[in-house]
Amino acid sequence: MYKDKFTNNNSKQTGEGIYSLIKELFPICRSITGNGVRQTLKIIGRHIPLEVYEVASGTEVFDWTVPKEWNIRDAWIKDGNGFKIIDFQKCNLHVVNYSAPIRAKMPLAELQAHLFSLPDHPEWIPYKTSYYKESWGFCLSHNQLRSLTEGDYEVCIDSTLVNGSLTYAECFIPGESQEEILISTHVCHPSLANDNLSGVCTAVFLAKQLAVQKLRFSYRILFIPGTIGAITWLNRNQASVGRIKHGLVLTGMGDRGGITYKKSRRSNADIDRAASHVLRQSADNYSIEDFNPYGYDERQYCSPGFDLPVGRFSRTPYGKYPEYHTSGDNLDFIRVESLSESFAALINILEVLEGNRFYTNLVPNCEPQLGKRGLYDRVGPNQIAMLWVLNLSDGHHSLLDIAERSDTSFKQIREAADSLHQAKLLG
Amino acid sequence: MYKDKFTNNNSKQTGEGIYSLIKELFPICRSITGNGVRQTLKIIGRHIPLEVYEVASGTEVFDWTVPKEWNIRDAWIKDGNGFKIIDFQKCNLHVVNYSAPIRAKMPLAELQAHLFSLPDHPEWIPYKTSYYKESWGFCLSHNQLRSLTEGDYEVCIDSTLVNGSLTYAECFIPGESQEEILISTHVCHPSLANDNLSGVCTAVFLAKQLAVQKLRFSYRILFIPGTIGAITWLNRNQASVGRIKHGLVLTGMGDRGGITYKKSRRSNADIDRAASHVLRQSADNYSIEDFNPYGYDERQYCSPGFDLPVGRFSRTPYGKYPEYHTSGDNLDFIRVESLSESFAALINILEVLEGNRFYTNLVPNCEPQLGKRGLYDRVGPNQIAMLWVLNLSDGHHSLLDIAERSDTSFKQIREAADSLHQAKLLG
Amino acid sequence: MYKDKFTNNNSKQTGEGIYSLIKELFPICRSITGNGVRQTLKIIGRHIPLEVYEVASGTEVFDWTVPKEWNIRDAWIKDGNGFKIIDFQKCNLHVVNYSAPIRAKMPLAELQAHLFSLPDHPEWIPYKTSYYKESWGFCLSHNQLRSLTEGDYEVCIDSTLVNGSLTYAECFIPGESQEEILISTHVCHPSLANDNLSGVCTAVFLAKQLAVQKLRFSYRILFIPGTIGAITWLNRNQASVGRIKHGLVLTGMGDRGGITYKKSRRSNADIDRAASHVLRQSADNYSIEDFNPYGYDERQYCSPGFDLPVGRFSRTPYGKYPEYHTSGDNLDFIRVESLSESFAALINILEVLEGNRFYTNLVPNCEPQLGKRGLYDRVGPNQIAMLWVLNLSDGHHSLLDIAERSDTSFKQIREAADSLHQAKLLG
Repeated sequence: MYKDKFTNNNSKQTGEGIYSLIKELFPICRSITGNGVRQTLKIIGRHIPLEVYEVASGTEVFDWTVPKEWNIRDAWIKDGNGFKIIDFQKCNLHVVNYSAPIRAKMPLAELQAHLFSLPDHPEWIPYKTSYYKESWGFCLSHNQLRSLTEGDYEVCIDSTLVNGSLTYAECFIPGESQEEILISTHVCHPSLANDNLSGVCTAVFLAKQLAVQKLRFSYRILFIPGTIGAITWLNRNQASVGRIKHGLVLTGMGDRGGITYKKSRRSNADIDRAASHVLRQSADNYSIEDFNPYGYDERQYCSPGFDLPVGRFSRTPYGKYPEYHTSGDNLDFIRVESLSESFAALINILEVLEGNRFYTNLVPNCEPQLGKRGLYDRVGPNQIAMLWVLNLSDGHHSLLDIAERSDTSFKQIREAADSLHQAKLLG
Repeated sequence: MYKDKFTNNNSKQTGEGIYSLIKELFPICRSITGNGVRQTLKIIGRHIPLEVYEVASGTEVFDWTVPKEWNIRDAWIKDGNGFKIIDFQKCNLHVVNYSAPIRAKMPLAELQAHLFSLPDHPEWIPYKTSYYKESWGFCLSHNQLRSLTEGDYEVCIDSTLVNGSLTYAECFIPGESQEEILISTHVCHPSLANDNLSGVCTAVFLAKQLAVQKLRFSYRILFIPGTIGAITWLNRNQASVGRIKHGLVLTGMGDRGGITYKKSRRSNADIDRAASHVLRQSADNYSIEDFNPYGYDERQYCSPGFDLPVGRFSRTPYGKYPEYHTSGDNLDFIRVESLSESFAALINILEVLEGNRFYTNLVPNCEPQLGKRGLYDRVGPNQIAMLWVLNLSDGHHSLLDIAERSDTSFKQIREAADSLHQAKLLG
Repeated sequence: MYKDKFTNNNSKQTGEGIYSLIKELFPICRSITGNGVRQTLKIIGRHIPLEVYEVASGTEVFDWTVPKEWNIRDAWIKDGNGFKIIDFQKCNLHVVNYSAPIRAKMPLAELQAHLFSLPDHPEWIPYKTSYYKESWGFCLSHNQLRSLTEGDYEVCIDSTLVNGSLTYAECFIPGESQEEILISTHVCHPSLANDNLSGVCTAVFLAKQLAVQKLRFSYRILFIPGTIGAITWLNRNQASVGRIKHGLVLTGMGDRGGITYKKSRRSNADIDRAASHVLRQSADNYSIEDFNPYGYDERQYCSPGFDLPVGRFSRTPYGKYPEYHTSGDNLDFIRVESLSESFAALINILEVLEGNRFYTNLVPNCEPQLGKRGLYDRVGPNQIAMLWVLNLSDGHHSLLDIAERSDTSFKQIREAADSLHQAKLLG
């Protein structure tokens, strides 16, 4: 099948801009609460208008409670000679995220219960968390773990885990309608590039581009901690989620794999159809996954009480690439080309949602005479697209329906519809 | 899968009859208006009862206007020596159909803008038209075109393009019911055998056969110029198109390819199901195409304001064989065997429509005892067909539904139903 | 795909029990009426509670009449030397079942019209019947038939065919609800092991196991002569068939082939979905057949006047194995392993029907926090099953719906639902 390429001006340049922002945000140690997120949002706020929210620890949000705020200044392990063998300053993945503070000396045997490594990938440091259960730990490469000798070690985690608040931000871009498209991305991961700085920074550049366009829908772009952030946001906005007509969770935009779209729980929502259509028409290598209740924050948006039409857009799904949640997911792992293509595909999907409409053929009895309106060009693809639009514009078929049934790109169908509309053949 | 053959008595003889009529009509120079169509209808009128209609040039028909009437007496090109190098009398494809009159001398360079050939098929003369835009031109083989030398040429097209009328005809064959089956075929092509004298003459022989049968439906068989003829007919008959329950556009009955059925816009109309069923059960080589808004007069019948259940029956679709719209589509191109098979398949499709009915099993609780009625023959195919008819005749399944679900030929299902009906097991 | 094995304690032991009972019942000469069935039911009655019914010859049952009762004491053919060449006492298949009595001497030529053999399987004796048409005959191996020499033969069939009654039995096992699951199996075949002593004896052991379980549905297990028995039962119970919510016809449980499930006429009844699900999840080799109106007593249960949700469970379908209805279908033909697997699969199918329910997620807004309830185990299959149950328990999805959509075994889904129900997350 012939594939149209994704269309977007400057998508290479945009990919480079996304990559630069990822680079800037990469060193920050983020978690589900604390200053890492605040610092991240401050930098994002230089690019797009952002409303930042703080929700106090202890606030009940549905079945959950906003947890204590975690902050960390430093952490290390010293060997018997006082030599720092693990240093948080070098890599923030070394500390199990959300670790309680500790300062102690202990023999290797005792320490080992708090050390985590990846035997299958002995050079990478794993990313681990201990949310919702106070504990502490260090992550290190398996090579380093195996090199540890017997003896006493001194450990220090200079963190605080106290009442404070959970931080998240919204970027709202108004369109003609109060109906909204939700874009959600998690900002709680420390130095990991693909998961999910790639999603965060792609969302920033989407917002930048949308802000200068004439929009039909309003857009609400969320930068939130995973799970508890989405739950908190849904809890505080439950009265107005009815406005959300379409939505996407963004994650993993930069790896070499093909684009993967995971359908919403509804499985045939417009966002599901738009994403499937765009990928089918334009991607050489992609997959469409059915909904399942595991994954990122689509879990919350698609919980049965909300059942929002929110799908997930990524490249290789989490857990399907070995670098996932390890120090291997770094700035070398992601590619500008992938970021560019992901961005272009997203823009194309949003263009479908923006441009989808039901028209009515105003000359429905037999074909109109296109020649006398200068619209006749024998059998070009544009002519066929016009015939499809005329034939199916009976009030029951949207332009996306027509694009699907004719297996023609939405862009071509919409252009045909625009020509016909100008010629007063559609109303 | 075992295939029943198409059933039709004398279909070979019918194929020969169709071929003879094609041969008789082949030399006539037809167009969308003019004496070629009238002469054609006159010959057809010797075989079947025909009502001929004339619609004046300038009549508005929906978005279109009935054009001027075109007639041609002669046309030629002479070289510098006065030698006729192109002669309409030898092949009427030489003149671009609907060419305005001209008489002029001009150098080769000027003439060339009016000459059309087929570089990929250098021995064939193309068929070209210039409807709806006054111009003139000649068609010739590419070999001849390349052989033309510099110098002046004299061109003559002795045609008229003036107010007159558009001519079409109907053959109406009444059945028990006022509900109609529409058969439509275009009569506007000059010396082209497959497209569409094969369709025209098959329609004539269908009418001949239907006229001597007991019919449930009434049949209306249209011999009309393509596009403008269908539009004109629909315009004049819009009040009564509701009577049309099923319909077929016939074209390209004689080439060597397999039968192709193109579905109506409704895509699951009875005609679509009947044609698909018959081809699946009986054709070795066939294809079923989804509806698309391009093609022959199904474009008009299936426009959204009408949305009639009209499919298209052909062998190889137009444009999919190189001889299409060239002098290669001649009397050698078509075969009696193909005409015979097309005719038989059409008859079988009409038999499904004629014979399709909803019955009710009058002994619905458990199976009736077939043995005591002399209907029991253990496990023959006829027995299984009876069991299917009994099992599904609950008022919600037509015989065609039963044939489809049981993957049995409609003929077998109908014969089983007839036996059961005679035995008072169906009502 | 990973397959759960069928789960059932002691299924091997059960398979052996079924085999023993088949062995015990094998020698009896059964028919659609007569003492063979009574004797069979008496033995079955030692294992499970049985209500035996007698319906008088001549009783009208829908379109049929209960036939005369057939009993047989002895039968043989003697050659000219008075030597018994065919002896009913050695194999009851030798007599065409339901043969009228005869005592006569005749030459080979005359006798041959009453002899039946299998040329393609020259060592096997066929099983033949002559219900509903009085006649007599003998079955023998083709080898023996060919060895018969010219001369007179003496034939004796010491049978009676007189008014009496048709015998059938029901085993009713009450559950919490008056809604019933029907299990039906035919008891009219003489010494044939797979068809259908395997079905009869599997039904007996199903009843035994069900009788000691806490049941949601009530079960009605029918031991009936084929066709006329089912018709008689339906006639006498037509007022209460509305109670039947699911049903299975059991036959051919012991051959080496894979399990075959034939769908009910409704084609998407819960029994169809439950059986398909269990086979897909647990069988290595199985097939699902669409409904057709031929076969065993599903023909009657699925006749349009009843249209009961009754499918058929077997291994290789009748007629698809050469031993079918011959002396080759003997005690060596069936295997304990197959009986065990069939039994386990049936139990698993019934477990789906018993355990299928619609739950409602009581914490539908976002996911509940499983960790604080001790239900969190990261990404184990049980966790995923819980997430599926929570996500889809919106009142519109049954546990079977959830098992199908998640492609997870029903057992796993039900266990997840049980945990969530205990944790008060489902209501």
